[in-house]
Amino acid sequence: MESIRQRRTIRKYQDKPIPAQLMEQLLATACRASTMGGMQLYSIVITHDAGMKERLAPLHFNQPMVREAAAVLTFCADFNRATHWCEINKAAPGYDNFESFFNASIDALLVAQTFCTAAEDAGLGICYLGTTTYEPGKIIDLLRLPRLVFPVATVTVGYPAEHPAQPDRLPLDGIVHGETYHDYTDDDIKRIYAYRESLEENKEFVRINNKETLAQVFTDCRYTRADNEAFSKKLLDALRRQGFI
Amino acid sequence: MESIRQRRTIRKYQDKPIPAQLMEQLLATACRASTMGGMQLYSIVITHDAGMKERLAPLHFNQPMVREAAAVLTFCADFNRATHWCEINKAAPGYDNFESFFNASIDALLVAQTFCTAAEDAGLGICYLGTTTYEPGKIIDLLRLPRLVFPVATVTVGYPAEHPAQPDRLPLDGIVHGETYHDYTDDDIKRIYAYRESLEENKEFVRINNKETLAQVFTDCRYTRADNEAFSKKLLDALRRQGFI
Repeated sequence: MESIRQRRTIRKYQDKPIPAQLMEQLLATACRASTMGGMQLYSIVITHDAGMKERLAPLHFNQPMVREAAAVLTFCADFNRATHWCEINKAAPGYDNFESFFNASIDALLVAQTFCTAAEDAGLGICYLGTTTYEPGKIIDLLRLPRLVFPVATVTVGYPAEHPAQPDRLPLDGIVHGETYHDYTDDDIKRIYAYRESLEENKEFVRINNKETLAQVFTDCRYTRADNEAFSKKLLDALRRQGFI
Repeated sequence: MESIRQRRTIRKYQDKPIPAQLMEQLLATACRASTMGGMQLYSIVITHDAGMKERLAPLHFNQPMVREAAAVLTFCADFNRATHWCEINKAAPGYDNFESFFNASIDALLVAQTFCTAAEDAGLGICYLGTTTYEPGKIIDLLRLPRLVFPVATVTVGYPAEHPAQPDRLPLDGIVHGETYHDYTDDDIKRIYAYRESLEENKEFVRINNKETLAQVFTDCRYTRADNEAFSKKLLDALRRQGFI
């Protein structure tokens, strides 16, 4: 699976559409992903229209990929379709709860990642927008997602206009645990993160943010407690609104 | 990406181990998956030991794959490692919240699915166990998962000892929405599910469960409201215990 080993996230795209037939093939391939009880608890909303990209971009903090990618795919956990199916078949659905939300989210993420792998294998580039979980309420409004539908991942896709270096990864023995979780000592953590911290680009990252350590860039600039707590509230509010809690 | 198009879930495995070098390659390949801010917010606990499989099996409702597969992989959302890294680097972590749980879950699921795709491409078969979200507390105990680590998906993997038919999938236009979500009419739902309902195996499924419709098999037998509500409670309890809410 060389295309996975060689992959890198692509944030700059050529101004070139994805042929409709290729997109359809990729979507059909993605739907071969495992799904709970064969239920396919997801929907995929595709944004091609420039006007819609313009309205979607601010909901993703104006990351330029939203406007520049050939297509933006919002993968949604969806118990609306299955619930409707139950309702017209004398069956009493019970999917307006957190367990069902989480199961449908898993389905949506497996299909999203399978789409990405297939797209990259076909020569396209992708980027996940982590911002989807920050403003779910606004995305729900714009994409008109009904009750029991929730956006869990957004992917921009197009023909690559860059070939960035592959980012580093932590050593495998810092990720994988045999039989039970072996919690880390301070020395383990130092060893696992040593290479990452030694990279010139990360040292530069610390300097330009006026920080002392790389970890502080994450806690103080990129993923702060205040933001995480505010986003948690919005996420839970949106889950309530969509009927999942 | 022919191996994805041809894939099917494998529940019967040969009694044959996976070479350590292949497993390591697959895990390293899986870690190329997209991850939020490059943080790799996941850990993978591998069960090879027969005694551990024996103890894990009942937590997955004694599905035979747990005992019979060469390996069982539990993919966990993990903010423990990153938090520890912050703590020894003068950085104040803020990841004990629902937003962080959901972001780490996304990371864990993308790496899980990438592992599965790579494993299938290498001739192995996989099966997701949906039961992971049913008894997270007991899995946390057995695998000794510390605070801020949460099991989100379990995959059994081994050399296939079966070649089942590919299951059906809903028509693509029942899954994909252009620009905004187009909610379904009753006729849409009937059309989307018509092929599935027409399959002889599904008609048999209705008969052996003494039901009137296929949807009732799902609501009354496989995924009931009572179960979903009980599992929701356990899931939220376990999230509280692990410090994510």
